[in-house]
Amino acid sequence: MKTFNIGIIGLGNIGLEVYKNIKKNASDIQKKTGFKLNVTKASARNIGKKRGVSFAKGVLEKDPFKIIKNSNIDIIVELIGGSDGMAKKVVFEAIKQNKHVVTANKALIAKHGDALSILSEKHGVNLLFEAAVGGGIPIIRSIKQGLIANKLHHIYGILNGTTNYILTEMEKRNENFPNVLKDAQRLGYAESKPTADVDGHDAADKISILSSIGFGTKILNKGFLVEGIRNIEIDDIKFAKELGYKIKLLAIAEKVNNQIKQRVHPCLIPFNLDVANIDDVTNAVVVDGNPIGRTIYEGPGAGKGPTSSAVISDITSIMLGGDEFSFGLSPSSKKKIKLFNFDNHHSKYYIRFLTKDVPGVLSKITSSLAKNKISVSNLIQEPSTKGTANVMLITHSSKELNIQKVLKSLSKQKKLFKKIVMIRVRDFKKL
Amino acid sequence: MKTFNIGIIGLGNIGLEVYKNIKKNASDIQKKTGFKLNVTKASARNIGKKRGVSFAKGVLEKDPFKIIKNSNIDIIVELIGGSDGMAKKVVFEAIKQNKHVVTANKALIAKHGDALSILSEKHGVNLLFEAAVGGGIPIIRSIKQGLIANKLHHIYGILNGTTNYILTEMEKRNENFPNVLKDAQRLGYAESKPTADVDGHDAADKISILSSIGFGTKILNKGFLVEGIRNIEIDDIKFAKELGYKIKLLAIAEKVNNQIKQRVHPCLIPFNLDVANIDDVTNAVVVDGNPIGRTIYEGPGAGKGPTSSAVISDITSIMLGGDEFSFGLSPSSKKKIKLFNFDNHHSKYYIRFLTKDVPGVLSKITSSLAKNKISVSNLIQEPSTKGTANVMLITHSSKELNIQKVLKSLSKQKKLFKKIVMIRVRDFKKL
Repeated sequence: MKTFNIGIIGLGNIGLEVYKNIKKNASDIQKKTGFKLNVTKASARNIGKKRGVSFAKGVLEKDPFKIIKNSNIDIIVELIGGSDGMAKKVVFEAIKQNKHVVTANKALIAKHGDALSILSEKHGVNLLFEAAVGGGIPIIRSIKQGLIANKLHHIYGILNGTTNYILTEMEKRNENFPNVLKDAQRLGYAESKPTADVDGHDAADKISILSSIGFGTKILNKGFLVEGIRNIEIDDIKFAKELGYKIKLLAIAEKVNNQIKQRVHPCLIPFNLDVANIDDVTNAVVVDGNPIGRTIYEGPGAGKGPTSSAVISDITSIMLGGDEFSFGLSPSSKKKIKLFNFDNHHSKYYIRFLTKDVPGVLSKITSSLAKNKISVSNLIQEPSTKGTANVMLITHSSKELNIQKVLKSLSKQKKLFKKIVMIRVRDFKKL
Repeated sequence: MKTFNIGIIGLGNIGLEVYKNIKKNASDIQKKTGFKLNVTKASARNIGKKRGVSFAKGVLEKDPFKIIKNSNIDIIVELIGGSDGMAKKVVFEAIKQNKHVVTANKALIAKHGDALSILSEKHGVNLLFEAAVGGGIPIIRSIKQGLIANKLHHIYGILNGTTNYILTEMEKRNENFPNVLKDAQRLGYAESKPTADVDGHDAADKISILSSIGFGTKILNKGFLVEGIRNIEIDDIKFAKELGYKIKLLAIAEKVNNQIKQRVHPCLIPFNLDVANIDDVTNAVVVDGNPIGRTIYEGPGAGKGPTSSAVISDITSIMLGGDEFSFGLSPSSKKKIKLFNFDNHHSKYYIRFLTKDVPGVLSKITSSLAKNKISVSNLIQEPSTKGTANVMLITHSSKELNIQKVLKSLSKQKKLFKKIVMIRVRDFKKL
């Protein structure tokens, strides 16, 4: 019986959990794959650190490149993180040394996935990254394998657990973003440098990866709209609720006229619509395709348990064989494709103006909208804290470019407006 | 480049759709697998029938066993249906002829899956059946591969689209079961002989299969509780709604003290609980395990599009290799395991008595409950049609055996009760 020897590079939370779960499930993995699995080597910046786990003699190794060059090692598991630096060096070098690679690194794959998959094909090894998207949800293999016979129309969902948790808590506790973020950081749900999560970059990396797999195209990892949730206030959540909407940070990829329309931004979605009730750190991905129709995948979007589950599923896929192509098709078949010009996007828009209490404000707003051919469907004005008022409106379907013109022109009027918040509205079952 | 030649046995709705989708997606399948796929032979009872599809000369073949014995054929796709008869003969014979087999036949797999997987291991071929459970949802490969590193606690969900459609329509249209069934039959959502669906057997076959895969045990395909939805009336749906519940037909498999607790029955579930809002023909499967936590899979539970999507995903898995074990582990590792004695089940129970308007009815009910140590949490009495009244109650957590004693004793009182409906209540997040 063949034994697969793996080397884990990076012994943080996730790396340690992968190590423990492989040890714990060794006999099950053998029954399920027909092969033995052994963590032969593991590397960390500080190998002397107390980790509460006993490693057999000779397993720990300071230099990751020694592990990569070790001819006994079949699979390198990269769990360092980051799009460049050490993680990048480790993965490129491992593939060059003809090692299979498993990684949970969304930033690396979103940035270098195309180059890495070409390199891995050249060296006849696998590069798998189920844990990079959707935590434990087997979303990548579901799209690559389960939906292999489908032409996908669009993929979207909640791909970042931290922001979903923050939005859920803001509503539950009637609190604004900065306070909830602080608590999330204290509880370990948000990092001390929260920008990757709260500004949408993490979700952007993930939708770039899913989009490339789902549409069979080269990775589009920049040049598309990425907006986070910093700007959203509890007032927006309340107004949305009054109108029957929840606010969620969505990552969306669609194929439109042979272009990819890809974006990350907060959305007002009706209470009863698909992902509206996915709360806390849960992720959910909606996939629409032909002939299957709509399937939805839901689960914990992060955390050491779910992530280690996904990492080990990739390791066993390599052991079993059959998951040859990182992105579900031969890298040479991946097409270059253009991004849709988002100025031409149409949707309803929610806009809230926190106005100063001076005459002519409403008239300024309505004339700017009229000038840009935007008509209003709902409008509420309510007094806010003293000396200010909230004017909240929802437009009829309008063009993004025109909305941006309104926002640009009105945001200059510092004497009238203290703050302007715009959130796109997702209003129909089919995007 | 190797070509995989397949023979489709059975050219009904599904068989024809598989044929069409393979032809339509031939070039995509080649890019995604690296191999060519060709429908070389197809067989049907009546090969002369007009099907609106042109088959190349020599493709149609009356005798399925000629196809099975054809040495050019790599994979047999069985789409006849039924647990025995022709379907059984075809699948056993195909494996004996060293052909891989793909089937959508839940009844066959639930009944003969253990024998078939042993035989297929002996002959070194694959037997795959993603389409047998959950229509297009890639639930089998998600459990086998995506969750391979997990110990599952339980698997449950809505596995029958027909009954979910009927329950949804009963509520929408305020109609009773017989009328809604008739319309569902007219629309093609229910078969003319509806018993497999409405009496729970279809869901039972599916949960037997998932349970065997999820817990690594021999298939338990009989001896467990299987109840359908025939007995449910619109009054039950309304009472449930008043109390904050929806009625769903659930299929449930759990591992309890090294026994399998497996069952299919209608359930009252709280509005906001996981699958409560899965309506119409949609299926949803909830899987709880360690270390992943809870994942949920949702999608169209039947229909030619979703089913053909699942069938083709199995065909391509065989082409790619790596999906070796039908049930996710070597057949010789599958353990025999006992069924939990359901008499010892505890839950809340909803019971509705349609009573005749005679004195002493309530006292009969309450004394029988008291005698069997069942205490009541809610009780509503309302007049129904003339001369009758509905007494609806929900118990505190009670033992199944005691509930059955009450039902047995009271159902004998034909002078008091016109009808008694009992539905189990699912009331907490963790089963």
